[in-house]
Amino acid sequence: MSRDQSFSSRVFSSALSQLAAYRAPAPRPDAVKLDAMENPYALPDELRDAWLAHLRRVDFNRYPDASAACLKHALLQRFPMPDGWDVLLGNGSDEIIQMLCMAVARPGAAVMAPDPSFVMYRHLAVACQLRFCPVPLTANFELDADGFVAAIRQERPPLIFLAQPNNPTGNLFDPAALRAICAAATGLVVIDEAYIAFAGGDSLAIAQEFDNVVLMRTLSKWGLAGLRLGFLQGPAELLAELDKLRLPYNVNVLTQASVEFALQHGSVFDDQVELLCEQRGLLAEALAALPGTQVFPSAANFLLVRQSAAQAAQVLQALSEADVLIKNLDGGHPALAGCLRPSVGTPAENERLLDVWQNVVNNGV
Amino acid sequence: MSRDQSFSSRVFSSALSQLAAYRAPAPRPDAVKLDAMENPYALPDELRDAWLAHLRRVDFNRYPDASAACLKHALLQRFPMPDGWDVLLGNGSDEIIQMLCMAVARPGAAVMAPDPSFVMYRHLAVACQLRFCPVPLTANFELDADGFVAAIRQERPPLIFLAQPNNPTGNLFDPAALRAICAAATGLVVIDEAYIAFAGGDSLAIAQEFDNVVLMRTLSKWGLAGLRLGFLQGPAELLAELDKLRLPYNVNVLTQASVEFALQHGSVFDDQVELLCEQRGLLAEALAALPGTQVFPSAANFLLVRQSAAQAAQVLQALSEADVLIKNLDGGHPALAGCLRPSVGTPAENERLLDVWQNVVNNGV
Repeated sequence: MSRDQSFSSRVFSSALSQLAAYRAPAPRPDAVKLDAMENPYALPDELRDAWLAHLRRVDFNRYPDASAACLKHALLQRFPMPDGWDVLLGNGSDEIIQMLCMAVARPGAAVMAPDPSFVMYRHLAVACQLRFCPVPLTANFELDADGFVAAIRQERPPLIFLAQPNNPTGNLFDPAALRAICAAATGLVVIDEAYIAFAGGDSLAIAQEFDNVVLMRTLSKWGLAGLRLGFLQGPAELLAELDKLRLPYNVNVLTQASVEFALQHGSVFDDQVELLCEQRGLLAEALAALPGTQVFPSAANFLLVRQSAAQAAQVLQALSEADVLIKNLDGGHPALAGCLRPSVGTPAENERLLDVWQNVVNNGV
Repeated sequence: MSRDQSFSSRVFSSALSQLAAYRAPAPRPDAVKLDAMENPYALPDELRDAWLAHLRRVDFNRYPDASAACLKHALLQRFPMPDGWDVLLGNGSDEIIQMLCMAVARPGAAVMAPDPSFVMYRHLAVACQLRFCPVPLTANFELDADGFVAAIRQERPPLIFLAQPNNPTGNLFDPAALRAICAAATGLVVIDEAYIAFAGGDSLAIAQEFDNVVLMRTLSKWGLAGLRLGFLQGPAELLAELDKLRLPYNVNVLTQASVEFALQHGSVFDDQVELLCEQRGLLAEALAALPGTQVFPSAANFLLVRQSAAQAAQVLQALSEADVLIKNLDGGHPALAGCLRPSVGTPAENERLLDVWQNVVNNGV
């Protein structure tokens, strides 16, 4: 047949009319990229040779090992877990979030998360035709545990996301508040530890206290964003349900081999993380010293910085002209008015960022 | 809270109770793998050097280009398309099928496909809580166009999958039957050309006659199964809707770079495909010469072979003992009783397959 005017509304679910495609920034190869929370350090040359030697053995004419047994083994050396737990791999955390949303999708079901938090929770909940129920954070971006528990009692969400530390605010939530939410939840609670490498400690102890809590992790921020590996760790019976929704060959052969390689050389990435944590402190201090500039405490590889909306716009403009890219959060959410979010870069990148920023604030240029 | 007995049924959708995880065969590294429709030829050594040199430039600490602009450009050189069309990339065709099912999911909506056909149509339709409506093929595995059109009129499916050539039967459907179905469809029709490289020709002309028809393609069978790249080509307005459901970083940096490389050296894979088509003819002839053995016409890189169920079981057993893996279809679907499905391998692999097979049939061993 031919498509008539009613084709899209008749054929596609109404969720699509509520969604826009996620807009990733267009690549600008020569810019200083502090807009995507990436580890700024590329693989050192000597390690690059060893990596390519490792890939030489991979035959990409064959399908991946659907169980990714070698990769899982390597992963569990670094992320040990209690007896009775299992691990589920995703093509990035995005795919894990999608699996979780698909798994709980039924008419009227709700996905709950603090607000503001990671935008893909809402996007994928809507894509899976779930109601997204955001629970406002306090003015300081802390969890409102009482408000959250009350919302749980009202909505009874089968799925709750809690990012620890939170994105885009960067702060760690109070573990007591996390515990109160886990205890009140009547469904699954996913503690999203995407940025945990920059925070020290994790929420494994909390997850173990409850049997409806799982940990979501990714190697993207640690230094492997381009490889796309996210994973979920939690009680095996729960993960077996989710595994029914996993595309069997979702982690390709080159990612499997490259992540194995990276884990074998984990100290290189750990050292980079340590350097970035030091740099985070210096950058936060320098920005906080600028007039009219509030830097929120960060346990992640980025800083949330608030200024007047006018000044934020000026800073953003000057940075873009200087080929320094950061994320603008002003206008996206009322709680983030005047907020910018630079990732922490190399010392040279941070200096370039600071130079421009200081110039604008001090000289209005 | 603690999980009680009702936790799973309360939290997870009822679709999960109807699904089992897709069971991919466990890796057997030393076996002759003729069970997964892979191209048996690994990358030649001299090309492997060039491939690794190409990957050396990739920095996997950065997120992939979400638009995959370079890869799309290379892809469209090989798969040109009419004005007004666009291309949508997936982490294998599986992910494309999932996006399509998610896009049309609404209560009671149906996904229709010939039966038997690719198992993931059903799996992903059920995962997305759609009704799967299979339409039986004729005894010769031809499309029953009248029956299909009648089923369309009854179910009004928003989504129809037609694999051309079909899997697991290997045959090409009559283009007139495809056209009749496209004309009767009130929703999207996806012509799945996964095996088209082995068939000659494609369905672009048919797709262009209708504006509700899209082509699904993959590079897996051509030789890149491990890289995971499937794609959809069709009218831009339709693909824009589906793009809302695409995970923004679904094609990782190494796949993007490696597929670009493979497309630059496409003649290597094309030559392999030609060799496999020759081998397909020889293998089909040799198997068809065996008593009690029916080989169906194949336009794909595998053969569908029917014997008595007892003989099929003997062949399968003997092959497994000889470390030759093929796909058993007996027991999975009534129309496929006694059917085995070997992929076409290298001349040496096919000879090993034939030796064992002939031995069993001729000597009952």
